[in-house]
Amino acid sequence: MFSITVRDHMMVAHSFQGEVFGPAQRLHGATFVVDATFRRPELDDDNIVVDIGLATTEVGKVISEFNYRNLDDVKQFDRVNTSTEYLAKVIADRLVEAIYAGTLGESARGIHEVAVTLHESHVAWASYERSV
Amino acid sequence: MFSITVRDHMMVAHSFQGEVFGPAQRLHGATFVVDATFRRPELDDDNIVVDIGLATTEVGKVISEFNYRNLDDVKQFDRVNTSTEYLAKVIADRLVEAIYAGTLGESARGIHEVAVTLHESHVAWASYERSV
Amino acid sequence: MFSITVRDHMMVAHSFQGEVFGPAQRLHGATFVVDATFRRPELDDDNIVVDIGLATTEVGKVISEFNYRNLDDVKQFDRVNTSTEYLAKVIADRLVEAIYAGTLGESARGIHEVAVTLHESHVAWASYERSV
Amino acid sequence: MFSITVRDHMMVAHSFQGEVFGPAQRLHGATFVVDATFRRPELDDDNIVVDIGLATTEVGKVISEFNYRNLDDVKQFDRVNTSTEYLAKVIADRLVEAIYAGTLGESARGIHEVAVTLHESHVAWASYERSV
Amino acid sequence: MFSITVRDHMMVAHSFQGEVFGPAQRLHGATFVVDATFRRPELDDDNIVVDIGLATTEVGKVISEFNYRNLDDVKQFDRVNTSTEYLAKVIADRLVEAIYAGTLGESARGIHEVAVTLHESHVAWASYERSV
Amino acid sequence: MFSITVRDHMMVAHSFQGEVFGPAQRLHGATFVVDATFRRPELDDDNIVVDIGLATTEVGKVISEFNYRNLDDVKQFDRVNTSTEYLAKVIADRLVEAIYAGTLGESARGIHEVAVTLHESHVAWASYERSV
Repeated sequence: MFSITVRDHMMVAHSFQGEVFGPAQRLHGATFVVDATFRRPELDDDNIVVDIGLATTEVGKVISEFNYRNLDDVKQFDRVNTSTEYLAKVIADRLVEAIYAGTLGESARGIHEVAVTLHESHVAWASYERSV
Repeated sequence: MFSITVRDHMMVAHSFQGEVFGPAQRLHGATFVVDATFRRPELDDDNIVVDIGLATTEVGKVISEFNYRNLDDVKQFDRVNTSTEYLAKVIADRLVEAIYAGTLGESARGIHEVAVTLHESHVAWASYERSV
Repeated sequence: MFSITVRDHMMVAHSFQGEVFGPAQRLHGATFVVDATFRRPELDDDNIVVDIGLATTEVGKVISEFNYRNLDDVKQFDRVNTSTEYLAKVIADRLVEAIYAGTLGESARGIHEVAVTLHESHVAWASYERSV
Repeated sequence: MFSITVRDHMMVAHSFQGEVFGPAQRLHGATFVVDATFRRPELDDDNIVVDIGLATTEVGKVISEFNYRNLDDVKQFDRVNTSTEYLAKVIADRLVEAIYAGTLGESARGIHEVAVTLHESHVAWASYERSV
Repeated sequence: MFSITVRDHMMVAHSFQGEVFGPAQRLHGATFVVDATFRRPELDDDNIVVDIGLATTEVGKVISEFNYRNLDDVKQFDRVNTSTEYLAKVIADRLVEAIYAGTLGESARGIHEVAVTLHESHVAWASYERSV
Repeated sequence: MFSITVRDHMMVAHSFQGEVFGPAQRLHGATFVVDATFRRPELDDDNIVVDIGLATTEVGKVISEFNYRNLDDVKQFDRVNTSTEYLAKVIADRLVEAIYAGTLGESARGIHEVAVTLHESHVAWASYERSV
C-alpha cells in the first residue's frame, strides 16, 4: 500500500459540553496541525498517489472554512462537541467528497483510504481513517 | 476508525544480555518518549474516544512504576531483555487492563485496540499494538 | 553560559484588533507550546541551572492562569492584542517574579536571563528574552 | 504486532516528467528523511524485532546507492518518475531482499511486513508498506 | 528582545567544488526547511514584531527564486559553493532589503536583527544572523 | 554570525546526589540527543563554517566515550552530578579542544564559539555555550 501525507494547520476557538471535559467546558482554543493521508494499492500513470500540490490546495480549502473561527458559532456544529477526533472525521469526509468530485484529479479516484490526524499539542493528537 | 494518542516519557537504566546487543550489554540508559494510542470504530456519547485527561493520567501511572528505575532491578523483568519493543508491550498490556478495570471511564470499554510507541532516540523507535 | 529549557502548553481563545490581523480579528484560538529557558553563567552547588521539576511546576502554574480561557475576557488583557510575542513577555515576566520570590529555589537567584518561546503552529513561533 | 523503526536520510537531485508536476519538472532536489519499519507478530529469542544496529546499517547501505546522486542519471530509474512514494517502494523492496538474504540476521526471517516512509519536507511525506 | 519566526521550505539541486565535500561534489539535492527570524527590542503599535502573514509571504517570495532549481545554473551563484550557511546569508540579506523597501510594512523598520536557519536534514542545519 | 549544527545521541545511566533531585537520586538513565553548534563571523575558503562530515565524526568520537555507559562509574565524573547542563559543558569543552588540535580541519580555527544542547526528553533540554 502506498500513501502520501500533507500537513497544514488551523486555529479555532470552541468549548465542550459534558462534565468529562473539566476546564475545557470553558471557551478556549486550539491550533490543530492537520495531517491528511491518502492511500492506494497502486500508483497512477504519473507514478504518484495524488498530486501533492492538489492535495495541499484541497486540504487548505477544507480547513479554511473553520480556520480563525469560533466553532461554537458554526452552524454545522450546533450542539456537537467538536473534539479533535470528531474534527478529524469532518475533514476526512470532506476529502473523500473531493475525491468523488474529481477536484483531486481524475486519477485520484484510485485512492482507497483517507486518514486525517489532528495534533492539538506536542503531547496529544487524534485520527480518523476511512475507506473511500 | 478513530484514535487518540497521548505522549509522556520515562527515564530508565538497563542492560541487555546477548552478543547481538554489542555495547548495549553494558549498563546504560534511555529516555523513552511514550505514545499511547487508543482506537475504536465509533465515538462515545461525549463524541470522544476516551477522555484525554484520564488517558494521560493512566499512562503516567503505568510508567511511574518504571520511571527513574534501573530495570535490571525490577522483579518482573528478571532475566528479561527489556528491549524497546518489549517495554511497549508491557505498557500496552497495562493500559488494556486499565480499560477492563474501568479506570479510563465506563465508555472507554468501547476501545478496540491499544498501540504503544516508545521513542528511544530521534532515530529509533518501537511499537506494539493489540486488540482489547 | 548555561541554560535549561522546559516545555508545556496552553490552549486559549482570543481575537485581535487592527486591520493588519485580517481574519485573525475574528474570535479564534491557539495552542501555544511554551518553552521557558533559564540562563546563568555558572551552575549552582548541585551542578544545575535550576531544578527542572521546580521550573516545570512554576511554568505550569503561570500558564494555568490562561489555559482554557478566552483571553479577551481576562482583565489584564483588556484592550491589549494578545499576540504570541506579547504573551511570551507576559510569561517571561512572571517567571522573573518567581525567581525574585524564591519559588524556583534559593539558588535560582543566580539566573541571569529568562527567555520564553511560544509556538503557535509548526510554522510560526515567537520569543521574548530579558535579563533578570 | 511488534515493530521497530530506524531513521536515516539521503540527499538527491531529480526531475519529473508530466504536466502535473509543474515547476518540479525542472531539475531540483530533496533531502529524504527515511524511516524504515519492520513488523512481526512475535519477538525473537533476544526479545527484539530485529537488531537496531543491523537494521540501521542495512538501511544506510541501501540508501548509500542513491545518496548524493542525480537520480535522473541512475540507470534503474531511466524514464521513471522518482516520486517520493515510488522511492519508498524501491527502498522497502531492497530491505525485503535483505531479509531473504539473511543480512539482517537469521531471526529477522520472522519479520512479516516492511514499511518505508520518506519525508520530503516538514509538510509532506510518503510511504509504502508490503508484506515480506 | 522580542522575535517571531516563520517556516517555509525549498527543494534544490546543487554540487560543491572542493575535496572537503567528498561525495557532495557530485550533483545532488536538498530540501531546505527555512526558518526566518525577526528581532526587535520593542513591539510596534499593534503589539507585534512584524505581521506573520507579511513575513510568511516575503519569505516565500525570496525562496521561490531558488525553489525547484539547480543552483549550479543560477547566475548569482556562478563559481560559488552554495553551502547551507551561505544560502542562509543570501536569504537573510534579501529579508533585510525587504525591510528597507518597506514590503514587510512600515512598522517593520523597527526590526533590529534578522536570522535565517536552513535545516538540510534532521541531523544538520546552519544559520546566519545579522543586524538590520 | 554564521553557524552550523550537527545532531547525534548517547544513551547513558547515572544517578544524582542531593535532595533536590527527588526520585532522580536513584540509578536511572537518559537518551541525550546532542546538538553541537559551531559559530564564526566569516566563512572559510570553501564557503563553510566547518565541514559537516568532520564535525559529525568529531561529535561522535566525543560522545562514544560516554555512550552505553553508567556515568557513575566513569572516573572523570567521580562525585560529580552529571546533570544535563554539566554534560553539555563537558562535550563543548572537548569540541573546543578538537578545534585547537586541528582535528576539525585547519580552517576550523576560525570558529569563535561552540554551543552544545542536550535534549533529555521532548519536554526538557539544556545548553552550554562558550567562546573558543
